[in-house]
Amino acid sequence: MKRSNYIPKATIERLPLYYRCLEKLSAYEQDEVVSSRELGERLGIPPTQVRKDLSYYGEFGRRGVGYDIEDLKKSLAKILGINKTWPAVLVGAGNLGRALVNYEGFQKMGLQITDVIDADLDKIGNNVGEITVRSTKDLAEIVKNKQVKIGIIAVPVNAAQEVTDLLIAAGIKSIWNFAPTRLVVPEGILVRNEDLSVGIVSLIYHLSWENQ
Amino acid sequence: MKRSNYIPKATIERLPLYYRCLEKLSAYEQDEVVSSRELGERLGIPPTQVRKDLSYYGEFGRRGVGYDIEDLKKSLAKILGINKTWPAVLVGAGNLGRALVNYEGFQKMGLQITDVIDADLDKIGNNVGEITVRSTKDLAEIVKNKQVKIGIIAVPVNAAQEVTDLLIAAGIKSIWNFAPTRLVVPEGILVRNEDLSVGIVSLIYHLSWENQ
Repeated sequence: MKRSNYIPKATIERLPLYYRCLEKLSAYEQDEVVSSRELGERLGIPPTQVRKDLSYYGEFGRRGVGYDIEDLKKSLAKILGINKTWPAVLVGAGNLGRALVNYEGFQKMGLQITDVIDADLDKIGNNVGEITVRSTKDLAEIVKNKQVKIGIIAVPVNAAQEVTDLLIAAGIKSIWNFAPTRLVVPEGILVRNEDLSVGIVSLIYHLSWENQ
Repeated sequence: MKRSNYIPKATIERLPLYYRCLEKLSAYEQDEVVSSRELGERLGIPPTQVRKDLSYYGEFGRRGVGYDIEDLKKSLAKILGINKTWPAVLVGAGNLGRALVNYEGFQKMGLQITDVIDADLDKIGNNVGEITVRSTKDLAEIVKNKQVKIGIIAVPVNAAQEVTDLLIAAGIKSIWNFAPTRLVVPEGILVRNEDLSVGIVSLIYHLSWENQ
């Protein structure tokens, strides 16, 4: 598949929005075609930006007609890599870990949490959804046997770096970190920090200026 | 406080990153001053962008010297509105709701979850952290008495719109939505959708292209 050499991060972050919008259109609407204008309006993104974002990956749609919904949806799934299933191991069987295992919407993004790990002897052996919690000692074996590529960190801040080191030692190269702290990792390891407090700050920011 | 008329969304989203970086500097480093270059390097943001982001709010720092860490931290807290405490009501006492109540790092961003609401009779009366779960019937009273400005939605997708309507009817104008669905709200209501699957898609995207 074609791809430009440099693609802005913001573009990559908009791709899943387009994908989910196309999914809804394909499920609930009769239309077979959608224009960049309609797609943009539904997402609050200018149509020129929609066209630019997609142009990084090839030529989609026809001028004056629009995009074939099913075609574009399939292309985007392929571009995003969510047409495959990516097994992931989650570390931390607390409330957040449990919430993530049960979170609706991961599976259709290609993510499958196959294993849950915890260091707490009281949690090992318990079930989270349909998954039995296993010990950190089993991590390397799980990663190897199931070819797990993604490690999810859902432990408290003070355990996050230790868990990171364990995941990397077990062969994990992509880490999705929910602990509100920056992790130290060697080069070649990809970390996505999911900082939940960033979201609330933008709300508070707007509230604050509105009340002045 | 000064503020430009138009400030890019991306700038607003970087402000909390600057704030947290300054907090760390102030806690762990001896220095009293930080340059835009050092701040940028720590966050992976070009120094020109750091200076531009801050310039929307006034003149901070001195050319060739840098920013006074304590001063800039205080200014940013004020700009972000996190120098005050914002009470919030959380709806949904499941795993995600429990995780959010216990999440480290909200409080220093000014967010304080004061109440937890659930429609499930089995959950009402139980404790989440130190908060006793109350019925949806009590929502309007809680919002009024505690002057709650923020509503947090941590319910499954199929209940999210109903909860939204309840929050708005109770007087809430800012909603932080963790259900992976778009909410329909009247004009004047601010919604921040916290879509957890967006985070994993960017990881999968990179994994996918690396493996081609």
